[in-house]
Amino acid sequence: MPIRKTEKYEETQVYRVRHSASHVMAQAVMELFPGHAKFAIGPAIEDGFYYDFDLPRALTPDDLVKVEARMREIIRGNHPFIRKELSAAEAKKLFADQPYKIELVEGLERGAEDEDGNPLTAPPVISTYTSDAFTDLCRGPHVESTGKINPDAVKLLNVSGAYWRGDEKRPMLQRIYGTAWNTAQELEEYLWKVEEAKKRDHRKLGKDLDLFQINPEVGPGLVLWHPKGAMIRHLVEEFCKNEHLKNGYDFVYSPHVGRGQLWETSGHLGFYRENMYAPMEMDQEDYYVKPMNCPFHIHVYKAGIRSYRELPIRYAEWGSVYRFEKAGVLHGLMRVRGFTQDDAHIFCRPDQMPQEIDRTLSFCLHILRSFGFTEFHAYLATRPKEKAVGEPAQWDAAIEALRAALDRSGLEYAIDEGGGAFYGPKIDLKIQDALGREWQCSTIQFDFNESERFDLHYVDEDGKEKRPYMIHRALLGSIERFFGVMLEHYGGALPVWLSPVQAMLIPIADRHTDYARKVQEQLLAAGIRVKVDVRTERMNAKIRDAQMQKIPYMLVMGDKEAAAGAVAVRLRSGEDKGAMPVETFLEMVKQALESKE
Amino acid sequence: MPIRKTEKYEETQVYRVRHSASHVMAQAVMELFPGHAKFAIGPAIEDGFYYDFDLPRALTPDDLVKVEARMREIIRGNHPFIRKELSAAEAKKLFADQPYKIELVEGLERGAEDEDGNPLTAPPVISTYTSDAFTDLCRGPHVESTGKINPDAVKLLNVSGAYWRGDEKRPMLQRIYGTAWNTAQELEEYLWKVEEAKKRDHRKLGKDLDLFQINPEVGPGLVLWHPKGAMIRHLVEEFCKNEHLKNGYDFVYSPHVGRGQLWETSGHLGFYRENMYAPMEMDQEDYYVKPMNCPFHIHVYKAGIRSYRELPIRYAEWGSVYRFEKAGVLHGLMRVRGFTQDDAHIFCRPDQMPQEIDRTLSFCLHILRSFGFTEFHAYLATRPKEKAVGEPAQWDAAIEALRAALDRSGLEYAIDEGGGAFYGPKIDLKIQDALGREWQCSTIQFDFNESERFDLHYVDEDGKEKRPYMIHRALLGSIERFFGVMLEHYGGALPVWLSPVQAMLIPIADRHTDYARKVQEQLLAAGIRVKVDVRTERMNAKIRDAQMQKIPYMLVMGDKEAAAGAVAVRLRSGEDKGAMPVETFLEMVKQALESKE
Repeated sequence: MPIRKTEKYEETQVYRVRHSASHVMAQAVMELFPGHAKFAIGPAIEDGFYYDFDLPRALTPDDLVKVEARMREIIRGNHPFIRKELSAAEAKKLFADQPYKIELVEGLERGAEDEDGNPLTAPPVISTYTSDAFTDLCRGPHVESTGKINPDAVKLLNVSGAYWRGDEKRPMLQRIYGTAWNTAQELEEYLWKVEEAKKRDHRKLGKDLDLFQINPEVGPGLVLWHPKGAMIRHLVEEFCKNEHLKNGYDFVYSPHVGRGQLWETSGHLGFYRENMYAPMEMDQEDYYVKPMNCPFHIHVYKAGIRSYRELPIRYAEWGSVYRFEKAGVLHGLMRVRGFTQDDAHIFCRPDQMPQEIDRTLSFCLHILRSFGFTEFHAYLATRPKEKAVGEPAQWDAAIEALRAALDRSGLEYAIDEGGGAFYGPKIDLKIQDALGREWQCSTIQFDFNESERFDLHYVDEDGKEKRPYMIHRALLGSIERFFGVMLEHYGGALPVWLSPVQAMLIPIADRHTDYARKVQEQLLAAGIRVKVDVRTERMNAKIRDAQMQKIPYMLVMGDKEAAAGAVAVRLRSGEDKGAMPVETFLEMVKQALESKE
Repeated sequence: MPIRKTEKYEETQVYRVRHSASHVMAQAVMELFPGHAKFAIGPAIEDGFYYDFDLPRALTPDDLVKVEARMREIIRGNHPFIRKELSAAEAKKLFADQPYKIELVEGLERGAEDEDGNPLTAPPVISTYTSDAFTDLCRGPHVESTGKINPDAVKLLNVSGAYWRGDEKRPMLQRIYGTAWNTAQELEEYLWKVEEAKKRDHRKLGKDLDLFQINPEVGPGLVLWHPKGAMIRHLVEEFCKNEHLKNGYDFVYSPHVGRGQLWETSGHLGFYRENMYAPMEMDQEDYYVKPMNCPFHIHVYKAGIRSYRELPIRYAEWGSVYRFEKAGVLHGLMRVRGFTQDDAHIFCRPDQMPQEIDRTLSFCLHILRSFGFTEFHAYLATRPKEKAVGEPAQWDAAIEALRAALDRSGLEYAIDEGGGAFYGPKIDLKIQDALGREWQCSTIQFDFNESERFDLHYVDEDGKEKRPYMIHRALLGSIERFFGVMLEHYGGALPVWLSPVQAMLIPIADRHTDYARKVQEQLLAAGIRVKVDVRTERMNAKIRDAQMQKIPYMLVMGDKEAAAGAVAVRLRSGEDKGAMPVETFLEMVKQALESKE
């Protein structure tokens, strides 16, 4: 049973290294402004650390070089980190000239906050850590001594402004970001990934490749798909819809608005209202744009008396839903206010449930693999401790079915104990992209709440009315976000089958345009999406532009090619495949399409 | 130039016949209740006439038989219709015991209403028409004498309640509906069509064939597509989308909500607000669900600097829009509050405009013909008299382009003088269904308003910024309404390519089920949508049920067929095509699919 053990970041060695590096950095900065530097907080964060300072002047890149050099000296000194517990009074005396530390000590005294200003639950112990000439208010943990930090695996990254305690009414401090790793190679890989991630940022690619816009005039978080992006979306939809049909799903379509009553019954107005768009009042009644498709699919189910023989019923819809996320959390296609789910609801008998979960999970993996993802991280989220609807026996059976399906799938998975929604357990699937980043994607989710609230039933073999199981599932999740992830995964160079333009024909001179048109007709007839670059640019400029547009194939044609009925094929990677007959090129494309390269 | 002359209904002979028949009917009813009947109004309406009465008791079907018999006597009497003009005082005296007529005369006196209570513009002339023993307040016109009514082409249809003047606070009257035609054959055809239309009512078919629901709990006028209806919609969309790609359109996708600012700029909040859903106020701002897709497509256009070389640009979207129609006008799929347009916007240079109109019109006819419609009624709507935006020269050029395109298309068309929107002229195309009814469907519409309001331009060959022409067009119009029309046109028996289930396999006994499954696999592999009726019903019941479901092919299989690898094919029309090898059946289906039968 390949259950994956997930170690908490806070318990790892690299976390201690980073936290310790932030102390070392703080010492170096303090030494740069002797008697004039105030220091605030300096935690380890994902992939690194920072420290916030109140300094007499703005830091320069030169300063960072000096600080980094001094850090290496301190590291080489191999000074031990020494912990000391003390009273609030002692701490205040110790940090008498450090107002931010005083404020933190006062917070600890009130018992409300830890050294980083976060809310506390247990009674506070005030402690300091001293290494070399630097003492910080800190509860640790740290490495044993500065020498445990690898001096070749530490790097300062940049400086940015940050309000003290994130409060714009408090002083603006200077935050130095750094990163630290176990080995120089890890550092190098990390820095490469950061650079690569910038280049692959889907917002940048979306602009460079003219794929979509998110325009404040239209509305923050609302996406307009431009022709090339829309073509990709169309191809994704077309593929997925056909796969759904083959996999025994029925399509349904539902409106984007509905009566408030629907969301009263479903419970969304009770527990989800803050994420919903505001109501539209008409004819003395509230209407809402839908945040979810469920109530509509449920009404399709309820349109008839369902027999045990009809089940399982699987309703699928590419349903656009609207959720009013806070402006501050909106982020490109990853976090939006309107998105389309490849949504489906499965209604089945209890005895069909294990098989349905198996089927859904393997269908899910098939779909994700079709888009070129191969690494998945599965999470099984179980019954929350506090409140949960549904019988414990139902929960147990459902969790068992999810677990068994995961076991049979061969996927490694982690248990997210108590992480289920109050209305049912679920499997979450994250996909790993080419840079090793995880993205939440698919969900297979039981719902004991709505089947109850909408009073769903079917007539069983014994003639009695029984409650069906209801399973929500979305495989790509949000098509907007999935598209963003795909763009970053491929750095914009999508597989041939998803490329809006698959080949650019490049006549070398004007006299080759007729031949290019002829080849275009031939390729179009074979179903290839192809354009001709008829601009009066030089060949190399045309090739470069097509490469920038991430077009998979560039077909160059001059006198020789025209005479031979051939094309000179270049790939967007820069690889030159040489001249070949058009038929050979078609065969090459066919293979790429079949293997979804 | 095949311009169609459209005669006004009010100027036709059959209109006079019907109006005259309503007088004859009134006389017969008055004679049935001598001294006790009050009569109100009795106009000719589409396909017939009615008269409203205030009577001492409810009318029975027997009464209608008597009235109809008496009408024929009056008709045979060939009494002339004699017009007389008179003063209001004389009229009041004449109708002293008829309170409804008195009220009508008073309306005429005030100069505000005609004899039927409709608002008047010209000063009133009060007139009566007398035929036989019956005199009515009436401005005519009528036939010369009752003998001009064909006694074999008149029929009374039914009685229903109607408030005097449609006001629920006034008395409830009894309205007798009748119909009258020039010939007995016309009457017969009409009655057949009425019966047929009832059977073909898309609301009835939608329920019988389990295609969709419109559920007050979800919201009036909001459509939920059930699996079989959704499959038809999917097939329609898939076909149309592919045709759009072949025809040089680019897809775009846009959200269903947007900032109020969009509709301020477009002018919709000014002139269209009453049809829009109410605003959603969030972050101190109004958002709206979209009543139209234009502002979004315009923003895609505006995302780049457009060169004259890029034009024409054609953006297509299956865009779901929401318009809050009054509850009283909602009608099945024909008039809804949310529908999906096969919408597109074309941006082109003035010199490209005639070609674009040609192209759009012929594409439109291609699409409509693909769905089996062959009769079209085109209307060219020109510049409205009152207000209109855009230069007269632009209007003239656009109207000329539309007219020329209609001429080249060979379609007969009528001029709808002044019938264009204030923002541009248009071609409307109505399709005629199997019962001869016209349905508004496609629109090709110029827009001089939004290109101005959103300040659209392109850079012309001379380097100057110019305003592009902008053309809206929807071919099916509303997919919901088109689906309703299609259902009624075909009486639910859709062409094979659009049938959600194309063949029902009917094993005669349980022992034939294995063979049926084998045939099913074979047909599924060939892409045919096929089900097996495994119920333990008798063969004839299974055939009948499949016929009721309008499934094109029923494949019956018993011992003989199983032994021969054959199927016995029946059509939904009842026609028995006999036994044939499965391959022969596949060939038959293939031909039906190709010809879109």
